[in-house]
Amino acid sequence: MSAFKPKAPGSGVSREGIVSYAYFDHNATTAVDNAVLDAMLPYFQKDYGNPSSRHGPGLAARRAVNQAREQVAASVGVQPGQVIFTSGGSEANNLFIQGAAGYLKPTQIVVSSVEHPCVMRAAQALTRNSRGSWNLRQLAVDKLGRVDVADVDEAMLEHHSGLVSVMLANNETGVIQDVAGIAAKARAYGAWVHTDAVQAFGKIPVDFASLNVHALTLSGHKVHGPKGAAALIMDKRLLLKPLIYGGGHENGLRSGTENVPAIVGLGVACGLVKIRIAERTARISAMRAQLEQGLMGMGAVIFGLGASRLPNTCYFALPGIEGDTLVVRLDKAGFAVASGAACSSVNPGRSHVLEAMGVDAALTRCAVRVSLGDENSPLQVENFLGALSRIAEELTRMNTVLI
Amino acid sequence: MSAFKPKAPGSGVSREGIVSYAYFDHNATTAVDNAVLDAMLPYFQKDYGNPSSRHGPGLAARRAVNQAREQVAASVGVQPGQVIFTSGGSEANNLFIQGAAGYLKPTQIVVSSVEHPCVMRAAQALTRNSRGSWNLRQLAVDKLGRVDVADVDEAMLEHHSGLVSVMLANNETGVIQDVAGIAAKARAYGAWVHTDAVQAFGKIPVDFASLNVHALTLSGHKVHGPKGAAALIMDKRLLLKPLIYGGGHENGLRSGTENVPAIVGLGVACGLVKIRIAERTARISAMRAQLEQGLMGMGAVIFGLGASRLPNTCYFALPGIEGDTLVVRLDKAGFAVASGAACSSVNPGRSHVLEAMGVDAALTRCAVRVSLGDENSPLQVENFLGALSRIAEELTRMNTVLI
Repeated sequence: MSAFKPKAPGSGVSREGIVSYAYFDHNATTAVDNAVLDAMLPYFQKDYGNPSSRHGPGLAARRAVNQAREQVAASVGVQPGQVIFTSGGSEANNLFIQGAAGYLKPTQIVVSSVEHPCVMRAAQALTRNSRGSWNLRQLAVDKLGRVDVADVDEAMLEHHSGLVSVMLANNETGVIQDVAGIAAKARAYGAWVHTDAVQAFGKIPVDFASLNVHALTLSGHKVHGPKGAAALIMDKRLLLKPLIYGGGHENGLRSGTENVPAIVGLGVACGLVKIRIAERTARISAMRAQLEQGLMGMGAVIFGLGASRLPNTCYFALPGIEGDTLVVRLDKAGFAVASGAACSSVNPGRSHVLEAMGVDAALTRCAVRVSLGDENSPLQVENFLGALSRIAEELTRMNTVLI
Repeated sequence: MSAFKPKAPGSGVSREGIVSYAYFDHNATTAVDNAVLDAMLPYFQKDYGNPSSRHGPGLAARRAVNQAREQVAASVGVQPGQVIFTSGGSEANNLFIQGAAGYLKPTQIVVSSVEHPCVMRAAQALTRNSRGSWNLRQLAVDKLGRVDVADVDEAMLEHHSGLVSVMLANNETGVIQDVAGIAAKARAYGAWVHTDAVQAFGKIPVDFASLNVHALTLSGHKVHGPKGAAALIMDKRLLLKPLIYGGGHENGLRSGTENVPAIVGLGVACGLVKIRIAERTARISAMRAQLEQGLMGMGAVIFGLGASRLPNTCYFALPGIEGDTLVVRLDKAGFAVASGAACSSVNPGRSHVLEAMGVDAALTRCAVRVSLGDENSPLQVENFLGALSRIAEELTRMNTVLI
């Protein structure tokens, strides 16, 4: 495996007329690592067999999938048999929620009010159909976006709850939840507990046993792996109904020809997570501190500040300046940032995360997310602060003139 | 787009001690075409953005997905808005069957008795759960594996049928069904009609309107595209319940970050289908004729012979010689063939396709599938016949000695 080499700033993405472009949107997706792509390439044209075939090319593909399963398992401290490969985090989250609900007697599903849409909407769907209807209970969060662990008891006492899903870290704020504490309480009531660790994985240590959950979702493309491969890690005693029926792949839980190159890439990316996480955390935390110091000097509000957060994520607002406008202006200036969760920007609207945190609507519209990654540098952060300051001044002047 | 260049025989896969290896298992999966891989590569490390992001890298990825949607649409004669990208053919088939069943009042689902497991088992699942239970009616096939179109009327008269799914060509036998004829009858009773065209696409012309269906599945990795991308093509008036809930991608029907490189690859592969199909058909038909002439000289039974079949597929049996044994021996001799549908060989058992055709159990165990492709040559076919003849003689001698 190659040593950790951050790329030159802006090497990943270039845009017309911009000498260097800084990608600050790693919570949306990341570039595939060189080592990951190198590992994937043989499976497109050389060892392209179907892992279900019994001839040489098929067996070669099967061995590659098995190796990736071991790599993924090792990265979160489980056995290979606990890894169910899916096409992405959304599918893995839906597989747990719909799959468990398909086996259990309908009761209540408990989720935090700041879940990703693929958990929230899957849970909402349970209230509308399936075999009988589930009750959906959302756990409140405090002003910093943290689930109140005590509210778990309350939710479980209100209604018998078969399922609990609370994300390990939020995609918008980066706020980390006390999943182990929540799981301990939920288990006492007999619930099956799942955590969406898609954003946390690769940014903080993730150990399946320590989290005390029955199931966990991780995804490749957030950790310099490819899009198209993710995993549901699960306690093998759970019984799930598949989302996709067919040839019986993935122990009957997920049929369909394995996406071998992407699965191989996910395996290598998971291996790199273990190697790089300590250095990454130190380096990225320092850049985030530099960024937030600058932002606070500009009068920014930083959401979740004071809570335990992912080291790479900074979700802020400059009061009076629209987030959407900033995203467009910063892009032109050579910086990729997000105004909300990328995955729901096809349906733009107010952030349900900030709403759950009690942030007022006017400030919510100003929210901008910076999510740092391996290829970023302190110089890029410095340049970003300069550009943001200039753009903010200009927009404020325009507003003043317009009023 | 690069011109059609068949690769040198055996260039795709090499095995220890074998100078050249011939891949005869194109119905299981295919090697990714050079032009496809070239088109995909920029989306791993350069334009790796999330298509839902509103900055430059996101917009570049969105444009790539849009272009692929146009290429896929053009390849089957529909509008881009009719293309729903999925992670594979199994997911697309499940999306139609479960998705339509999620909207319609439970009645009867009619499928052919030779469907792929991802259609058959999805249909079987409808009889066990969902909102009320569906009745499953399987259409009988004749000895050549053809659905009796008249049986469609009978099925529709027995029970009100909301859904019909009949594959365009069978993965094992290659036998082509009269989907347009079946659809005309099914539509007269108000059913929604779907066809799994995964095996047919790229091997015979596939035009959505001519097939007269409401929905059609095609997949990338059977046509030298990548694993991990497929499409459900549909009449936009259909209402489907999603399998995967979340950010609302694919018009709300399939949430999850788009697998941009694989989708780009699927688009290019679909473009190549249009360019290459005529030449491919002529070249591969000739090799199949050469193959079957040789097989008949060896006393082989060819399943579906006399029916309209895909030009690349030959499903045969040498009576008394086990298919599984032949697969292993032929692999060692440098030829990749299948003893049944690869996708279900994780769960080996008797072929339900041959069973539906009334083939006796002893002969079924002898079934071997050869599925030819672009990179095969007449010399490979000649060498295959020689190797098969030697192996068959040897196995027959061993059997004789053992008895």
